[in-house]
Amino acid sequence: MHSFEDLSLAFANRFNDRHFPTQPATLYDPAVYFLGLGGKRIRPVLCLMGNELFGTIEDDAWHLATAIELFHNFTLIHDDIMDKAPLRRGMQTVHDKYGTPTAILTGDVMMVVGYEYISRIQSPNIRKIMQLYNQTAVKVCEGQQLDMDFESRERVTMEEYLHMIELKTSVLLAASLQIGSILGGAGLNNQQTIYNLGRNLGLAFQIQDDYLDCYGDASKFGKQVGGDIISGKKTFLLIKTLEVASEAQLKEIKRLEQAPPAEKVAGMLAIFHACGVDAWVRELKEQYRAAAYQSLEDIAVLSKRKEPLKQLVDYLLTREY
Amino acid sequence: MHSFEDLSLAFANRFNDRHFPTQPATLYDPAVYFLGLGGKRIRPVLCLMGNELFGTIEDDAWHLATAIELFHNFTLIHDDIMDKAPLRRGMQTVHDKYGTPTAILTGDVMMVVGYEYISRIQSPNIRKIMQLYNQTAVKVCEGQQLDMDFESRERVTMEEYLHMIELKTSVLLAASLQIGSILGGAGLNNQQTIYNLGRNLGLAFQIQDDYLDCYGDASKFGKQVGGDIISGKKTFLLIKTLEVASEAQLKEIKRLEQAPPAEKVAGMLAIFHACGVDAWVRELKEQYRAAAYQSLEDIAVLSKRKEPLKQLVDYLLTREY
Repeated sequence: MHSFEDLSLAFANRFNDRHFPTQPATLYDPAVYFLGLGGKRIRPVLCLMGNELFGTIEDDAWHLATAIELFHNFTLIHDDIMDKAPLRRGMQTVHDKYGTPTAILTGDVMMVVGYEYISRIQSPNIRKIMQLYNQTAVKVCEGQQLDMDFESRERVTMEEYLHMIELKTSVLLAASLQIGSILGGAGLNNQQTIYNLGRNLGLAFQIQDDYLDCYGDASKFGKQVGGDIISGKKTFLLIKTLEVASEAQLKEIKRLEQAPPAEKVAGMLAIFHACGVDAWVRELKEQYRAAAYQSLEDIAVLSKRKEPLKQLVDYLLTREY
Repeated sequence: MHSFEDLSLAFANRFNDRHFPTQPATLYDPAVYFLGLGGKRIRPVLCLMGNELFGTIEDDAWHLATAIELFHNFTLIHDDIMDKAPLRRGMQTVHDKYGTPTAILTGDVMMVVGYEYISRIQSPNIRKIMQLYNQTAVKVCEGQQLDMDFESRERVTMEEYLHMIELKTSVLLAASLQIGSILGGAGLNNQQTIYNLGRNLGLAFQIQDDYLDCYGDASKFGKQVGGDIISGKKTFLLIKTLEVASEAQLKEIKRLEQAPPAEKVAGMLAIFHACGVDAWVRELKEQYRAAAYQSLEDIAVLSKRKEPLKQLVDYLLTREY
């Protein structure tokens, strides 16, 4: 068994290897640049952990972990274009640095190289794994489309928002765990349980992300606290508030839309609190966090084997920034 | 054995089935719209023919033909964004009709659905087929990147241009044939020969395309004759001319760059002819055409089995528009 730190480090070391040809450099330099920006590499580590929970980590798991991380990075490159984001991890995004056409192609080729890694696996379950991977990829695209659709809509229900977050964030975490578990020889029940763990983990993580954007420690959070409020982003907090606010509060929210940033943040935080939405969001996260730990509990293997995964869930769901 | 027309019709009928879920419609309607614009469906038919040359067409061939056509359409959607093209087959492009963010995602999801079809195949050669498919997909991306790179360059050598065309156009035709042949049980020699047939067919086709843009029958060609000259596109004709033209001719070409369209077309056609480039391009196409027929000849199966494929090559390389 390997600890979370061991697996993170081992994956990061392998992933630093070059995944692309050198020419044309106009296509591949941007890909290498973007992967060089780093990241927590959570998804591939989940794949490795899913494997090790039931067996010994094999070459197939490294290939699939690599494929998953390449897929995730492809989505980030394309999402940044769609969101017109100038920065990612404090550095220039690919389209900002190399232009949109190249960023589109760089993402495309990164996705294909992900599939190259899949084609290397020896598992007799290659078709089942590919189907899960493809279904997940489709859902991630759907999630991004819904996210864009919601931007231009006046109202989004909590159910719709949860569904979007599940598609955009949770399913890839869940599938990473399940793919690893398939390689480890997990039975169908365990596969389903570990998938649910990933799903609940993703939802709890995103709820926490929305919460910390408002209530995080500015010195640790790494981005502007209240950024979502300033940009008017529909978050768990705003959506719930719009559901429960009084007429007067809704009028005040309308007024704040045009207010200067500092006033807007202070005003919205006051309304969130008055509506009890801050406490409600903490409770919502707690529900999904508890559900994630329950799934972890329900996986039918020795408790000791689950330690690294528990460590990772702790790490992801107890951060304050 | 099925004729070219039979296979085209059979594929078109199957391909008209829906390949996508219905929701979110904002993501899938654009995909359905684009596939509805039609196309000659050459690549999937090549896959089916490659299969039938050596065996009986099986379900796997239909799945792979579908995957290939979806991949091809994904590249068209993304290429149209990069090329800022407003029209495709006389209709609005996806980004023009639905916006660039949606067009990026629609292409992405179309590529993934292509891989879904691959995951359905039962062939024991699934890994080999995926590797060929992925290598080809990577090359097509590289070709598009080179095509974009060449636009902003002053000079491109004939060798570079041929290499770009091979990547952007030929390799997918070649791989379509080879993938079909693998399903049919072709030996390695036959696989290589049929791949070469596709490669030469693609090059001859593209050379012909550049030629017809200048010398096609305007009433049949369906687009403006001389369009490449007007847009200053680097074609086989222009690249060769820049290699062989005299100082005076180069000066005249420079002057024509700023001339009104009609004068520019007439002037460049005169220079092409004076440099003997029109005849040279006809000869170049003839070389690749002959090489394609030679490959067809060299495939070690009964001549009668090759008839449909010969019919398709004839169709593609004898058009005058």
